[in-house]
Amino acid sequence: MKEKKTPLILISNDDGVHANGIKELIQALRPLGELLVVAPDGPRSGMSGAISSIDPLHIQLLEADESMKIYSCSGTPVDCIKLGINELAERQPDIVVSGINHGSNSSLCVLYSGTVGAALEGCVFGIPSVALSLTDYDLNADFKHACRYGRQIVEEVIREGLPAGICLNVNIPAGTTIQGIKICTQTKGRWIKEFYKTRDEAGEELYWLTGEFDNTEPENDKSDEWALANGYVAVVPIQIDMTAYTMIERLHEILSDCR
Amino acid sequence: MKEKKTPLILISNDDGVHANGIKELIQALRPLGELLVVAPDGPRSGMSGAISSIDPLHIQLLEADESMKIYSCSGTPVDCIKLGINELAERQPDIVVSGINHGSNSSLCVLYSGTVGAALEGCVFGIPSVALSLTDYDLNADFKHACRYGRQIVEEVIREGLPAGICLNVNIPAGTTIQGIKICTQTKGRWIKEFYKTRDEAGEELYWLTGEFDNTEPENDKSDEWALANGYVAVVPIQIDMTAYTMIERLHEILSDCR
Repeated sequence: MKEKKTPLILISNDDGVHANGIKELIQALRPLGELLVVAPDGPRSGMSGAISSIDPLHIQLLEADESMKIYSCSGTPVDCIKLGINELAERQPDIVVSGINHGSNSSLCVLYSGTVGAALEGCVFGIPSVALSLTDYDLNADFKHACRYGRQIVEEVIREGLPAGICLNVNIPAGTTIQGIKICTQTKGRWIKEFYKTRDEAGEELYWLTGEFDNTEPENDKSDEWALANGYVAVVPIQIDMTAYTMIERLHEILSDCR
Repeated sequence: MKEKKTPLILISNDDGVHANGIKELIQALRPLGELLVVAPDGPRSGMSGAISSIDPLHIQLLEADESMKIYSCSGTPVDCIKLGINELAERQPDIVVSGINHGSNSSLCVLYSGTVGAALEGCVFGIPSVALSLTDYDLNADFKHACRYGRQIVEEVIREGLPAGICLNVNIPAGTTIQGIKICTQTKGRWIKEFYKTRDEAGEELYWLTGEFDNTEPENDKSDEWALANGYVAVVPIQIDMTAYTMIERLHEILSDCR
């Protein structure tokens, strides 16, 4: 390896800059390089790849020393990554790390998660990126294992890089014993019983999003839900090119009569 | 083909229920079946696959006759699809159609677009889904060609179906002459010059998201940006499985030392 400058690590999350998960991540990654933290000023769970197309963004510098700056931002996780890279970083970050999320982002959560949205945005800029989530929604969850595995994975990704357009979606199981790491596919399935219906004080119906995950994979598959259920850290490589290449030939047939 | 019930078409968008694009789409699709429209109560551009994980959702029935119901919803485009399928539809919709968006959703916009987010959500439920966008941001844009091609594509998709987990991202070029349809891949590239920086009345810095698309595809590629630039309707099949299968073997090597 050639001699290199200290790595610049851009950190964000979707639980907000004051969440325990990002604080623990900052402590775990400080020894690895210079840190630039740009995270939402409050919770932005479920924001996916959302961007602020209507409102302008405000930022606030919360903390700064010679090897770390921490900004809060009024926008989404993706806004934070865009601002960090375009406006706040003095050079191109070497890695984007998002998390540690309070709660699982396995399976189809890649479509909804702001934590994953931020990592995908790092990918858009051609920067190796990692999303980290702990499958424990408790505000006081124990992030010890998540930090240990997260740091190791981040070290390897800084050293080895990742191909353009591919980032890592990492979920760490809650609990005290971990069996190791599994490289996985994104679990197939869907949510069921998604709404809890109630009424407000004026008698108007309200719908609260909730739900149970219905896993449609076969037994003993190699998906991330299987790995987590069996005590492994699940690492899924995910890509920003969503083209369904296998469908292109068939689609020519289906749309052949459209004029 | 077996005799079937009238198709049930679930419609949403991200410009809101009062936008011209969705009104034109409703008129174009009325002859094809029964319509259930569930769309945001105002603009939700750039909302990607965001879901309302914190606030409850309100809905309002705006219009109803024997073959159409129109609801507005306080949530995101994905919330609208989830509510439509789980709570408002009396049977499983035969197709989800999202749009017609005021403005392009080609290339990497699949990561940010609420229009595309709604179509991907139809996919999650195993329903054939189509996102429609016109590359014209004018509120009074002419949707004639977009409606004609959109309707033909929707008819074919109702007839032929789509494989599980795959939907269509369709962009129609603005202008009066269209060369036909091209089946495309998602254009590779990124945005540059993404922020316009200004100050508010108190002197605080504000950042407005803007930008230019930097297309990194080779000349004469088969991507959606190429098709649109050459006057074609661009149809990209996109999938909800984001796993980068080509990366799995290499990732075993990269992470082999993590314990």
